[in-house]
Amino acid sequence: MRHPAQAVVLAFLLADVVGTALLMLPPARTGAGGADPLTALFTSTSAVCVTGLSTVDTPHYWSTFGQLVILALIQVGGFGIMTLASLLTIVVWRRLGLRSRLTAAAETKALGPGEVRRVLKGVLLITVSCELVVAACLTLRFALGYDEGWGRASYLGAFHAVSAFNNAGFALYSDNLVGFVGDPWICMPIALAVIAGGLGFPVWLEVLRHRRRWRQWSLHTTMTVGATAVLLVLGTVLITVGEWNNPATLGSMDAPGRVLAGFFHAVMPRTAGFNSIDYGDVAGGTLLITCILMFIGGGSAGTAGGIKVTTFVLLFWAILAEVRGERDVEAHGRRIDERAVRQALTVALLSVGAVSTATVVLTELTEHALDAIFFEVVSAFATVGLSTGITADLPGPAQLVLVALMFLGRLGPVTLVSALALRERGHLYRLPEGRPLIG
Amino acid sequence: MRHPAQAVVLAFLLADVVGTALLMLPPARTGAGGADPLTALFTSTSAVCVTGLSTVDTPHYWSTFGQLVILALIQVGGFGIMTLASLLTIVVWRRLGLRSRLTAAAETKALGPGEVRRVLKGVLLITVSCELVVAACLTLRFALGYDEGWGRASYLGAFHAVSAFNNAGFALYSDNLVGFVGDPWICMPIALAVIAGGLGFPVWLEVLRHRRRWRQWSLHTTMTVGATAVLLVLGTVLITVGEWNNPATLGSMDAPGRVLAGFFHAVMPRTAGFNSIDYGDVAGGTLLITCILMFIGGGSAGTAGGIKVTTFVLLFWAILAEVRGERDVEAHGRRIDERAVRQALTVALLSVGAVSTATVVLTELTEHALDAIFFEVVSAFATVGLSTGITADLPGPAQLVLVALMFLGRLGPVTLVSALALRERGHLYRLPEGRPLIG
Ligand SMILES: [K+]
Ligand SMILES: [K+]
Repeated sequence: MRHPAQAVVLAFLLADVVGTALLMLPPARTGAGGADPLTALFTSTSAVCVTGLSTVDTPHYWSTFGQLVILALIQVGGFGIMTLASLLTIVVWRRLGLRSRLTAAAETKALGPGEVRRVLKGVLLITVSCELVVAACLTLRFALGYDEGWGRASYLGAFHAVSAFNNAGFALYSDNLVGFVGDPWICMPIALAVIAGGLGFPVWLEVLRHRRRWRQWSLHTTMTVGATAVLLVLGTVLITVGEWNNPATLGSMDAPGRVLAGFFHAVMPRTAGFNSIDYGDVAGGTLLITCILMFIGGGSAGTAGGIKVTTFVLLFWAILAEVRGERDVEAHGRRIDERAVRQALTVALLSVGAVSTATVVLTELTEHALDAIFFEVVSAFATVGLSTGITADLPGPAQLVLVALMFLGRLGPVTLVSALALRERGHLYRLPEGRPLIG
Repeated sequence: MRHPAQAVVLAFLLADVVGTALLMLPPARTGAGGADPLTALFTSTSAVCVTGLSTVDTPHYWSTFGQLVILALIQVGGFGIMTLASLLTIVVWRRLGLRSRLTAAAETKALGPGEVRRVLKGVLLITVSCELVVAACLTLRFALGYDEGWGRASYLGAFHAVSAFNNAGFALYSDNLVGFVGDPWICMPIALAVIAGGLGFPVWLEVLRHRRRWRQWSLHTTMTVGATAVLLVLGTVLITVGEWNNPATLGSMDAPGRVLAGFFHAVMPRTAGFNSIDYGDVAGGTLLITCILMFIGGGSAGTAGGIKVTTFVLLFWAILAEVRGERDVEAHGRRIDERAVRQALTVALLSVGAVSTATVVLTELTEHALDAIFFEVVSAFATVGLSTGITADLPGPAQLVLVALMFLGRLGPVTLVSALALRERGHLYRLPEGRPLIG
């Protein structure tokens, strides 16, 4: 294998194929016969890439067995991306000679079995504890607040807890979570699980280790936690204000309900994809703000998608440094390697390229309005799963484009960055400097 | 004055105000009374920023006097941006200690009156010769091919030649140039004038000086000419193929006519803004490709707008270098200063920010579809002037947003880059290096 990132891609391809095969089995469907290959492939990819887009009505199309397959794919996909991205980071940082806080260990170049075990154990511990707590909260609420039997309530609680922590956004209701828009006992545990999963394993590891000493956090953790807080506050304000008087969304609720729903929809684009209002009804401004939040996404080496907050913040800092006339990009008492800035630039602009290309292709393949198509494309690429409702109407080739986008969006940024970082090399000689006019 | 770029902004503001006042005079209108302030401001800004967007029907709303005011504003705006941007470049490069080929002259820090005169003379020479040749071609065609009297034909020829060379896109026909879609004797001189004006003064100066020795071209000229050629070929192919069977645009023409129209609409988004097909009828893909071409724009220190081709190419090279694992960004035997890359990044991302913000604001202010609004916003920011036809329907506040965008788009990139370049400074000490995970 020329590059460890190839192993990650192969692992996800394998899980996707196995998932597609399982979902094509007749017992996976409620109706007669097995699901057709495209539906199975789309659902399997959406689950294993923890996206949540769906061309069929999850609770009615899939049997309980089918739903359990989806749940397993979500868990495998979420666990897989957290562990594999973390291991990839260790490999890359070690080759670069950087001290990663993901591992206390040795100076060897290769990844030892002990380290792999430690990462697996850590991710497992965080995943299981978060999911258990959230599942318990949800189960109680489903049983006590909605008169579900304890068996059904536990199933609902577990499914939505797993779907939330892994940022998958699959729900067992035809309208996703629209029925629970005003219920903080459902919305808050789910939102917190989403945020927790989206921070990423490296952040969790460090926050747990340095519990009271946030001043000792690494640059990565400071950036991720800070940017997450800023994006959540900003998103909540913009979405709550933008939809305040929209009768089809927040307009009909009381003030606390509007703020709850506003917060919920600031959390969900980054990049869980649950929804408690209908994105077919929101204002144009909300749609665009949601697109921006989706594109930025969540933390690295977690269950969130998008270009990742650190990529975004790094570019922001680079611009700030430039406007201030400073030679170095600096933040939190650190000078940022110019290579990291160029890698962030590469990830961001290639992502813009992928989204633009897919948007152009989909406008050719379908008759839907540009805003709906663009929203769908960003949602697929950032593995969010929000939709204005056009997913099921898309023709086969358009669905295949989304399948490719989900895969690319899930694995593209992380494998690209590690590939770029591993190729870093110097020069034997430097050319004379040249400078074009710009602007 | 703290910064020479402020003088540029003040000069354009002054021209805009004078133009607005002149257009409000009753003789400027065909109808009774003077134009209302908003219409006059919009038209004056659109003319002086050589954009070409219009809220009224130019040939019917404005009298010949009004049209001559518009023509004068276009010429002042185009001449102004070429000379002022060139002078700004000389100032900046000299302070940076770079040898600019814009001036053979001295090592003094200040700009001498002799240099200013040389630049003015050079721009004047190129402008007048290009406009005279194109006006002559058009006049002949209008007189011989369309039975216009020689007086009227010269007026039409001169107006469209000035409008073309200055990349303004104003035409004296209600449907712009749709009536001439199949006429190469009108379309080709206009397209060539647009390309000539869009290359920029520094390129012209160098091409004329080193006529036969293109291997000795500076990095800036090589980049501008190369990227212009690539964008024109690529644009022609994509637009011709995309519209080939669209009965509302190219579908009804013969093959050479389709290629001519495809070429014409690959030239016009960069950033002249004439149109011979109706952008309200083109396919979604064509609209997006046109948006991308508009955003990239033309050459620096010319009459074109957008972020400029050199900005775009620089970012492309930075990504290429990163993907190849190279420490330096290199092209055409030159190493590009990392500061130039960061300045390109700053211009591009701040421009994306301006366009996104304006799009969100306009979706709140109007009921038009997102694709039409986005197209209009990019067109205004890149001073292109193409429209799907919504300009006249926009409410007052939305028109003011476009006025602000045209001004920002015309002066923002060039003044931003010179401000950034003049602030370049080193550091007394460097912080320890830090590196977040990205992707
Ligand atoms: K998701
Ligand atoms: K223009």
